[in-house]
Amino acid sequence: MGKEMSPERKEFLKKDYSQGFIADVGFEAVHCKRGRLESRLKVLKRHRQQDNYLHAGVIAAMADHTAGYAAFTLVPEEYRILTIEFKINFLEPAWADSLVCRSRILREGGQILVGESEVFDHRPDGEVLVAKAIVTLKAVHSSKIKQAII
Amino acid sequence: MGKEMSPERKEFLKKDYSQGFIADVGFEAVHCKRGRLESRLKVLKRHRQQDNYLHAGVIAAMADHTAGYAAFTLVPEEYRILTIEFKINFLEPAWADSLVCRSRILREGGQILVGESEVFDHRPDGEVLVAKAIVTLKAVHSSKIKQAII
Amino acid sequence: MGKEMSPERKEFLKKDYSQGFIADVGFEAVHCKRGRLESRLKVLKRHRQQDNYLHAGVIAAMADHTAGYAAFTLVPEEYRILTIEFKINFLEPAWADSLVCRSRILREGGQILVGESEVFDHRPDGEVLVAKAIVTLKAVHSSKIKQAII
Amino acid sequence: MGKEMSPERKEFLKKDYSQGFIADVGFEAVHCKRGRLESRLKVLKRHRQQDNYLHAGVIAAMADHTAGYAAFTLVPEEYRILTIEFKINFLEPAWADSLVCRSRILREGGQILVGESEVFDHRPDGEVLVAKAIVTLKAVHSSKIKQAII
Repeated sequence: MGKEMSPERKEFLKKDYSQGFIADVGFEAVHCKRGRLESRLKVLKRHRQQDNYLHAGVIAAMADHTAGYAAFTLVPEEYRILTIEFKINFLEPAWADSLVCRSRILREGGQILVGESEVFDHRPDGEVLVAKAIVTLKAVHSSKIKQAII
Repeated sequence: MGKEMSPERKEFLKKDYSQGFIADVGFEAVHCKRGRLESRLKVLKRHRQQDNYLHAGVIAAMADHTAGYAAFTLVPEEYRILTIEFKINFLEPAWADSLVCRSRILREGGQILVGESEVFDHRPDGEVLVAKAIVTLKAVHSSKIKQAII
Repeated sequence: MGKEMSPERKEFLKKDYSQGFIADVGFEAVHCKRGRLESRLKVLKRHRQQDNYLHAGVIAAMADHTAGYAAFTLVPEEYRILTIEFKINFLEPAWADSLVCRSRILREGGQILVGESEVFDHRPDGEVLVAKAIVTLKAVHSSKIKQAII
Repeated sequence: MGKEMSPERKEFLKKDYSQGFIADVGFEAVHCKRGRLESRLKVLKRHRQQDNYLHAGVIAAMADHTAGYAAFTLVPEEYRILTIEFKINFLEPAWADSLVCRSRILREGGQILVGESEVFDHRPDGEVLVAKAIVTLKAVHSSKIKQAII
């Protein structure tokens, strides 16, 4: 299964996790190790729907992005991870003031990686699994990704 | 297949579409008719990743929410729509300054509705299909949905 | 979480598992308990492709059907289980002479149940996870299902 | 979009479609052109469940395999197509004596292809859409695929 990441690589990935849209929404990486990443969202009013439940789109974005960074822990530093597709089931409404996502990679060892993400509503009386996703990812050498010119 | 919506219902759904997280991100309903809804996002810097491509989470939230409102056009006014699950494939990176989503319902006639969403990057030289989703939805009588107490 | 099934119910479900197409292909239930079911296929030449790998369709049928019967362990006896949808990722080719599927229900407590299935290739040197699926199921009272007239 | 296939290539793909498990179940390719393939199943008693409806596993195998061969129409002859994953929604029960699947590729132009499959129940009063799938496929050079030794 290869070797553990360096502390520097761990710190880099945790920081790299929160940029652009992800930073704007407020998702943060909390822990990572080989093939696994845990993220968190402090839930604000703007993440909710009119009925105060968390919007499915918030949960889906977290499940996708966290699986992508779990994949990052397994590829050389010059590779980027792209999402090919994902599927997510919503099991329960989420309403607590904090959301936790734990992702792990089920398949490595090639250009295609497959991860799964479990999203938990962090309620006063304990965590409840509110969504589960399977995410198909692709590792691409960074020289093959061009910056979008806008 | 039942009758067309009233103009008032159409206006209500288009307005109702943008609340909470959806309004915060900036998605808007543009057109609707029985079983179909089209939405739009004016893309801002905060929707992008560090490479200027749109984040997959933005596209997924749009595909899910727009399919949900396509379902709303088919159920009586006292029903709400919940997402059971969805699956989305990302076909191309999106980088233009406007995103369009068109959703239609493939299966109605019961508590479970199934829709599909196509998301297009609105480029200067024409629209390009960047993502396709299938969304499973559930119609629930509003009396059975309680407001989350937070 | 309710009570364990009676031994009679367990025997009934294991026998009921293999009928029609499922019996024709050769899938068999091996164990079951509340919310879980394990099935097995003795792989024959007719299940393979021209390259001797197992066809994805065999693996998918097993993942779907086994999740359905895991759901059967949680509903009253007068209910039937229908598959609304499923998604499956193929992680490795399967080539051994026996396939094992383990399914468990992630969400119960309503008309919609969600299960996950893991399919393992039973190789001489141990089991290897070759596919993972998420399955959305619906419990329907048997009085609401009519026999197809053909 | 490249050129149309030769008549010889079309005949080859239609014949190649039915081997191993696929031939055993009875699926047959009927038509193909660039990026599209149509297949058919004459439904027999062994494809049905105890209630005479077609088993979901039969429909899923058809949706997967037909999308795979739609992809074959777009790649050079020395490439093979593997299924990475698929997702399928079951919209209606199928009970007629013939099933038709039409697949088309949504994304080509690289190693990853994405197709969609629509499965129709061929009823006396017309075709009814009974399932829809999205299938993610990978084109692999045949020199990189080894025969399983069993």
